[in-house]
Amino acid sequence: MRTLQPIAVVGVSGYTGFELAKLLLRHPAGPASTFFIRDTQGAHCLSELFPQLRGTGRAPVRQLSVENILASSAKTAFLATPHEVSAELAPQLLEAGVKVIDLSGAFRFRDAAVFQSWYKLPAPHATWLGSAVYGLPEFHADELAFAKLVANPGCYATSVILAVRPLVDAGILAPASQVIADCKSGATGAGKELRRDLHFSELDENLKAYNLFSHRHTPEIAEQTGVSESQLIFSTHLLPIARGILSTIYVTLVEPQSPEAIEALYRKTYASRPMVRIWKAGTLPEIRHVAHTNFADIGFTLDRSGQRLIVVSCLDNLGKGAAGQAVQNFNLLSQLEENTGL
Amino acid sequence: MRTLQPIAVVGVSGYTGFELAKLLLRHPAGPASTFFIRDTQGAHCLSELFPQLRGTGRAPVRQLSVENILASSAKTAFLATPHEVSAELAPQLLEAGVKVIDLSGAFRFRDAAVFQSWYKLPAPHATWLGSAVYGLPEFHADELAFAKLVANPGCYATSVILAVRPLVDAGILAPASQVIADCKSGATGAGKELRRDLHFSELDENLKAYNLFSHRHTPEIAEQTGVSESQLIFSTHLLPIARGILSTIYVTLVEPQSPEAIEALYRKTYASRPMVRIWKAGTLPEIRHVAHTNFADIGFTLDRSGQRLIVVSCLDNLGKGAAGQAVQNFNLLSQLEENTGL
Amino acid sequence: MRTLQPIAVVGVSGYTGFELAKLLLRHPAGPASTFFIRDTQGAHCLSELFPQLRGTGRAPVRQLSVENILASSAKTAFLATPHEVSAELAPQLLEAGVKVIDLSGAFRFRDAAVFQSWYKLPAPHATWLGSAVYGLPEFHADELAFAKLVANPGCYATSVILAVRPLVDAGILAPASQVIADCKSGATGAGKELRRDLHFSELDENLKAYNLFSHRHTPEIAEQTGVSESQLIFSTHLLPIARGILSTIYVTLVEPQSPEAIEALYRKTYASRPMVRIWKAGTLPEIRHVAHTNFADIGFTLDRSGQRLIVVSCLDNLGKGAAGQAVQNFNLLSQLEENTGL
Amino acid sequence: MRTLQPIAVVGVSGYTGFELAKLLLRHPAGPASTFFIRDTQGAHCLSELFPQLRGTGRAPVRQLSVENILASSAKTAFLATPHEVSAELAPQLLEAGVKVIDLSGAFRFRDAAVFQSWYKLPAPHATWLGSAVYGLPEFHADELAFAKLVANPGCYATSVILAVRPLVDAGILAPASQVIADCKSGATGAGKELRRDLHFSELDENLKAYNLFSHRHTPEIAEQTGVSESQLIFSTHLLPIARGILSTIYVTLVEPQSPEAIEALYRKTYASRPMVRIWKAGTLPEIRHVAHTNFADIGFTLDRSGQRLIVVSCLDNLGKGAAGQAVQNFNLLSQLEENTGL
Repeated sequence: MRTLQPIAVVGVSGYTGFELAKLLLRHPAGPASTFFIRDTQGAHCLSELFPQLRGTGRAPVRQLSVENILASSAKTAFLATPHEVSAELAPQLLEAGVKVIDLSGAFRFRDAAVFQSWYKLPAPHATWLGSAVYGLPEFHADELAFAKLVANPGCYATSVILAVRPLVDAGILAPASQVIADCKSGATGAGKELRRDLHFSELDENLKAYNLFSHRHTPEIAEQTGVSESQLIFSTHLLPIARGILSTIYVTLVEPQSPEAIEALYRKTYASRPMVRIWKAGTLPEIRHVAHTNFADIGFTLDRSGQRLIVVSCLDNLGKGAAGQAVQNFNLLSQLEENTGL
Repeated sequence: MRTLQPIAVVGVSGYTGFELAKLLLRHPAGPASTFFIRDTQGAHCLSELFPQLRGTGRAPVRQLSVENILASSAKTAFLATPHEVSAELAPQLLEAGVKVIDLSGAFRFRDAAVFQSWYKLPAPHATWLGSAVYGLPEFHADELAFAKLVANPGCYATSVILAVRPLVDAGILAPASQVIADCKSGATGAGKELRRDLHFSELDENLKAYNLFSHRHTPEIAEQTGVSESQLIFSTHLLPIARGILSTIYVTLVEPQSPEAIEALYRKTYASRPMVRIWKAGTLPEIRHVAHTNFADIGFTLDRSGQRLIVVSCLDNLGKGAAGQAVQNFNLLSQLEENTGL
Repeated sequence: MRTLQPIAVVGVSGYTGFELAKLLLRHPAGPASTFFIRDTQGAHCLSELFPQLRGTGRAPVRQLSVENILASSAKTAFLATPHEVSAELAPQLLEAGVKVIDLSGAFRFRDAAVFQSWYKLPAPHATWLGSAVYGLPEFHADELAFAKLVANPGCYATSVILAVRPLVDAGILAPASQVIADCKSGATGAGKELRRDLHFSELDENLKAYNLFSHRHTPEIAEQTGVSESQLIFSTHLLPIARGILSTIYVTLVEPQSPEAIEALYRKTYASRPMVRIWKAGTLPEIRHVAHTNFADIGFTLDRSGQRLIVVSCLDNLGKGAAGQAVQNFNLLSQLEENTGL
Repeated sequence: MRTLQPIAVVGVSGYTGFELAKLLLRHPAGPASTFFIRDTQGAHCLSELFPQLRGTGRAPVRQLSVENILASSAKTAFLATPHEVSAELAPQLLEAGVKVIDLSGAFRFRDAAVFQSWYKLPAPHATWLGSAVYGLPEFHADELAFAKLVANPGCYATSVILAVRPLVDAGILAPASQVIADCKSGATGAGKELRRDLHFSELDENLKAYNLFSHRHTPEIAEQTGVSESQLIFSTHLLPIARGILSTIYVTLVEPQSPEAIEALYRKTYASRPMVRIWKAGTLPEIRHVAHTNFADIGFTLDRSGQRLIVVSCLDNLGKGAAGQAVQNFNLLSQLEENTGL
């Protein structure tokens, strides 16, 4: 590999940032990383803050500030920061010539109004929204190769878009029929902040539905699949496991299809994409097949009528759903093999 | 209480039978129970087979045979036996004047062809199918008071029927629209028989969908709700927990409704039924609210259009989904308060 | 049963108080209970605060204050409150003639200095410490029948004392040998307060040791077994389960014993105590055998030398380890059968 | 890297073999691997048998036989086979000049009688037992560089030996005092074969002790630490998690030590060993710190007397406890960096 370009990883205190750190520490480009955190507690190295990282590589830590990031000569910055922090940091870094891969929701929408209405936060300037590339390599690889600002997708959104968009693009969904995505996620997807419903004794042996008709990934799914919000039902459940999303997606086809045709459609769509795996018609992926990987797995069952289709889409919310996908985007930005270090 | 009538509990080696034993041991009528099991291993008392039952009451064990059951003078028999065993045992007990509460699928359908086609087993004689009462007290309490043969419902089926039938009865479902029940169950619902996908290391931290478009509870739900099989999608998932079902049910209403109207409809339907609890509009039950109880809890969210409704229905698959419901049926048969001992 | 005496249950917001509420709601004396809580949020009834309690019985809620408790005419008060709150409340209630069953650590020690040194809190007055009866019915049933103040034992302590004290009383422990109790507990034992290590994603798939040589139940075990603190090693681990304690206890015997002799010793000790169950020599109880019950189960294995003994002691930390034991104590105070409602 | 030497991986149907396959597929030497399995079911490639391996690399599968292994030109063979299969296969491969890394217990003892008495199987010939190197790199790295037959240690044994042997070697254990290792393991350590106590509904929310005074890793720990079997108590528990071992080890020191001295002893012992990490005095490793890694983490707490020491030792039973350690041994055999691909 050529000389390593310096990388800034901003925000490692949450689960996504920490996963990103672990992935980069074993990535060929990783040794060039500097980690930025709001409160370094006097630490100079990530393993002082997280002893479980000892022995996994050099990981210098600095106080989070635009000045410090620029001082590190970073050519690319990963932002694993809250929406509002990303919204503020990204433009400053971009203006200084640093490419940004943002893992928050701040730059996922073209339309500022959509962001404001769903996130209840001021949107970044339209210039930036317009220039951001939605970081789903399976559909935006060409733009990603030249992107300066990448909006890394939401975990649920990735899982649903990968399953639904091939059907939309092929024009086989019954017009005006509902697309229902019943999604279930492990607890790391809900974050590291202490919360009553994430207290072990509350979630253990439990399952709960939440944010019905109101989850923030809804507009993202609608925009990226072309299914209108009024046609889309996206619902979410919290599973008593740490990692993984399984989405069960119900669609109606405009006319009967064979299982072979559906399988062929998915295979063709992802033929050159190493991170999406299609299961044989009638077999279904499970969370255990993708946990701790960067794969998104898709399977389906078609009923006898050939018009009712259930698609099952699985990924690891910290892998392909967040940090792994960010690294995949970084690989594309850096003209590396898409699956390098994944 | 009057003199206790002898009870036979047939089959205690599975999870359902064992739960039934535990419930009866603390039920006022319980001291009159005799337990029948295929292989007594020389035991005279249930706690010799299950040491964790010591100290919970008298529980004589006998070898399973029609003769032994009749010799016990049982007036009522619970059958927690496989479908084919129930299909054979029940008629013999009924002819001898013993009332039967069967927890298998053998007597749940009026139509023998439905049973045969979904269970791949010979159906019981039409006389018995015709006389069986479907043991869902919330809709069949009057018949249950005089029933001789009770077909205790399936666990998933109970969860879905309780949520959907009030909407059908009120005539508010959009005609020809799909009713989609995305159901998730704990592992005891899949039984005690050793199976690869129930091995701890396979199910731990996992979620899997299974039996899409082919689960045996489908015709039961269709028959009891009046939703045709072609309108109904019933799908099932295996959760990494021991007990509990959560069903997320998607329906389209023929015209806009208010949350208050939906809540009122459910409250009215179950006003006199102590085992179903309706959650306030916009709040949702979770598995932890019903695990280790006999309650079925129902909540819902209506979208802004007032026509897309998501109902969340929770119960304990061993409680209201099986053994608890069998006791509830027993209470009705015995003219006891419906929730006695539950 | 005679006319019900009013009961006050103080503190229901934690796991122990909530379990106590659930137990009392199905206890024959339960209908006489009033529940006191620091912030009633305007509720008049427990099920307004905890919807999962709907349908389980009448449960009036009042603002927590000495005046309100006295106004309820309570003859007995359960205190499921923090140590310092119990230390303050109990004397006031006792002086007004209300019997107190305290579930905190405030009254577990005769010696104020012990409490102060381990709990870092001012101890209650010596009068109260002197009059308190340690609420372990298996060893203090006679005193409990006449107690005015009951100090309900710690969960770990109950598990270890029940296993060790019969050996000490029989004089068969090797003098000066170490007694090592390696204890493992479910997460409800660590409380409901949000804490990093109790966040689902941190405890899931984890096991951690904590408070080695410094757990507060140490002096309680020492005092109640007669094993000196220098001879006792008591260590604790947090399990990724909600309920249950398993203690593995290592002792050296002064001379060789047979398994039969050890089993006989335990059986004799607990012959008239319904809540302790002894497992046959060579068989061992597991957490699943006691979860959701009030039983404490004891089993053991003796090595071939006959002098190295491992005792395994299991209970439910919310049952026999806390709320269930409090009800057991209440039964004794009230001249009811010891296992009433349990 | 130089030209890759062909590798044979024998037995991938269990959890250990499968983990080994996953590790080798991302190891630089991995592309030279051929996988041997008793029943290939017609598959030519591992991902046909395990779809979750698709996209992770080339993995040819062949029918397990000595002929096929030799035909593959393998220079090194990993045996993830049952004890009796390894005992038979290894000599044949060795005689043909293939180096063997055996993950079973067949070659872990110098003394055939020890193997026979604990495993109830005929022992391999003394020649082979005598030539086998115990594959714990932290204590046998020099021999491993030249080994022809490596006996990969047991998972529990690794965890205990790494914690105890430095204390023995330093001569600081009180003579004749007991060394008590209370060990807890996740379920993959108990294997993939279906078993009642590994059925999800039995192990979920449970903890059980097993094989007290009779676990097969006992003689291995005794031999490798120099603690006699009569001084050693090694007990094992099954945790409701998939991966990880935590051993809590109780020892008595011959004279008081400071925490600093203990920490220094461990640091010095493992100064040049990248896979063992020592935690600061008073801090303790947890299973989550080592799961899915090849690290063994050691921490401890010393009581105020300075003579009672509790050591906590954690590792992943499939990582450092089995497959990861096998790869570490392979690296040493192959003159690669010890942590290559780990």
